[in-house]
Amino acid sequence: MSVKMYSLSIPIFRKFLTRLSAILDKAAAHAQERKIDPAALLDARLYPDMFPLTRQVQLASDFAKGAAARLAGEAPPKFDDVEVGFDQLKERISRTIAFLDNIGPARIDGSEERAIEIKTPNRTLRFSGLEFLTEFSLPNFFFHVTTAYAILRHNGLPIGKDDFVGRT
Amino acid sequence: MSVKMYSLSIPIFRKFLTRLSAILDKAAAHAQERKIDPAALLDARLYPDMFPLTRQVQLASDFAKGAAARLAGEAPPKFDDVEVGFDQLKERISRTIAFLDNIGPARIDGSEERAIEIKTPNRTLRFSGLEFLTEFSLPNFFFHVTTAYAILRHNGLPIGKDDFVGRT
Repeated sequence: MSVKMYSLSIPIFRKFLTRLSAILDKAAAHAQERKIDPAALLDARLYPDMFPLTRQVQLASDFAKGAAARLAGEAPPKFDDVEVGFDQLKERISRTIAFLDNIGPARIDGSEERAIEIKTPNRTLRFSGLEFLTEFSLPNFFFHVTTAYAILRHNGLPIGKDDFVGRT
Repeated sequence: MSVKMYSLSIPIFRKFLTRLSAILDKAAAHAQERKIDPAALLDARLYPDMFPLTRQVQLASDFAKGAAARLAGEAPPKFDDVEVGFDQLKERISRTIAFLDNIGPARIDGSEERAIEIKTPNRTLRFSGLEFLTEFSLPNFFFHVTTAYAILRHNGLPIGKDDFVGRT
């Protein structure tokens, strides 16, 4: 027995992007109810040189669509980082999920040995498809989803671990 | 082509536990250098009802050893949550890695369809081995490693994304 690459990637990104979107719903409702300026949450950071909530959501989207595209052997679609407000962030998540849904298993399965290069400002990272997914894409994706959660928790949003990982 | 369960689990937990240990080294050195009481970091939380740093590290350990044990079809070893100080937390991480290293591929591979039950205080979660790893163990593991990182960043430790995910 063994596992196919599709089942390790697209459904996982899809599930946790959906949960992130639901967390943003709760944040938007909380802000309205408590008369909190949404920007107070969207621009919140855990430290001055860390990214704010909006950027954390954009990066979660980027790591998901980047993983899906590169495993499928194509260039990731560019989404401009222009979202203002919870609704636009949720729309970006929807667009990301639509992109994921458009890549079928046939394009991802078998990608575990595909050579993948990621150019960062400082260096070029070279991975097999499997390393790229398990050591780069998923950890970075969960890093940004968790940090978005942490920013909102730190700012008093009453959510819990189930909002992040619970089964629905 | 396809992927075996071992390569999706043990090496990933091992790698990110090792990185978490290195982050704790940096935190301990920083505390010493800046004359910060280590407890000010170890007991730090992002919100009063969130777990402090020490507990985040213990939980990262728990999700790693719990995943490895359950995929191998055994009960997870119980580690008492008694660590005080960076050295003891690092020792717990070492014990966790030693446990992981003792489970060879033969015991994990083929576990993708193993039926796994997790009893929480509120309910029983039922998974296939693959769901357990990809939808529960890895997300929870990365959640706690990231939150440990976020607590330290929030408290001024000069670390960066490379400490979390960089290749070494």
